[in-house]
Amino acid sequence: MKLYNYYRSSASYRVRIALNAKGIHYEYIPVHLLNNGGEQYSTDYSKLNPMGQVPTLVDKNISIAQSVAIIEYLDEKYPEPNKLLPYDIEKRALVREFCEIINAGMQPLQNLAVLQTIDKIFKPHESKKTEWMFTWMEKAFHAMESKLAKHSGNFCFGNQLTAADCFLVPQVFSSQRFGFDTTNYANITRVYSHLVKLDYVQKAEPSKQIDA
Amino acid sequence: MKLYNYYRSSASYRVRIALNAKGIHYEYIPVHLLNNGGEQYSTDYSKLNPMGQVPTLVDKNISIAQSVAIIEYLDEKYPEPNKLLPYDIEKRALVREFCEIINAGMQPLQNLAVLQTIDKIFKPHESKKTEWMFTWMEKAFHAMESKLAKHSGNFCFGNQLTAADCFLVPQVFSSQRFGFDTTNYANITRVYSHLVKLDYVQKAEPSKQIDA
Repeated sequence: MKLYNYYRSSASYRVRIALNAKGIHYEYIPVHLLNNGGEQYSTDYSKLNPMGQVPTLVDKNISIAQSVAIIEYLDEKYPEPNKLLPYDIEKRALVREFCEIINAGMQPLQNLAVLQTIDKIFKPHESKKTEWMFTWMEKAFHAMESKLAKHSGNFCFGNQLTAADCFLVPQVFSSQRFGFDTTNYANITRVYSHLVKLDYVQKAEPSKQIDA
Repeated sequence: MKLYNYYRSSASYRVRIALNAKGIHYEYIPVHLLNNGGEQYSTDYSKLNPMGQVPTLVDKNISIAQSVAIIEYLDEKYPEPNKLLPYDIEKRALVREFCEIINAGMQPLQNLAVLQTIDKIFKPHESKKTEWMFTWMEKAFHAMESKLAKHSGNFCFGNQLTAADCFLVPQVFSSQRFGFDTTNYANITRVYSHLVKLDYVQKAEPSKQIDA
């Protein structure tokens, strides 16, 4: 398997956690989102990923973009160890709901391409850009906290790793990098502190990647 | 089953298509996104959906938000008729990838809450807001078109309904409503024209809902 990704991309980070947790060996292919006008827009990479985004997983003849689709695929192909979507239908639905709060509800509004486009089109003062990002982070952190208050143990859902954890860690990491105070969210802070101590999470951290 | 939703919300429209295609009877509970400052922010609804978004599906004791999570749940609980995530692992991955191009790659950047927040924070000229929306629509329509060029028949993937179709129809509908020209995308136009003739799609159309 080959993973086209970027060390600091939170969607890439999600997939790296999933791959490591399952002990799947993969080739790391860096796609630099800033160098050369953004390598994700190159002709070759655009064929794999016409949205010009990372990550993309290539597994023999299939190429899959979008972190949700990749993680579901990995979990179906290699259910164990660390089943990421629980076997129970209702639990699986709640895990997916949590992932999408991040995947559709927050990250798309504050990723690099979006911030670049905001600069280009609206030319806002830096403080307005921060207000924009924090608006979405506050909304989603509030929602995630209320979910974790109900469902969390050491992990987002009970005491076992799920896909929700693969999404939570990179989002907390990236929100902190933007200066958002995550410490007001007691359950998120507790679960995050537990997760970042795990080997398979540490190995996936941005600073540990070859393109860092 | 109860579906809390709004006639013109594209995420609600996706779920209505899925419910109708499977012949699942449901109670339609309107949540008006504009009246009373937005009924999605009411105290009662916030308990169901702390993100303050539609749709939310309530099935006996479980409440599920996020259209992807809802559609996966419906498909797992009622696989037939019209299996929305194909049985083959690789095909399922490609369908999910397509859904996420819309779900995470386009719709979050142009929904009502986002456009309201752009107005509030950046106070742009109307033409700049259109430039913003069309930037994301062009990117995603280009990506969707390249996927359909490879995979489509009468439907997004071959000649059978999948979740991809549940996502495509509302996105084309909403993009047209914003004045985006979708006719340049030959495969999207062809598949969309086929889909909107189907009974279970027509029944889900915004104009046919009780809150229209």
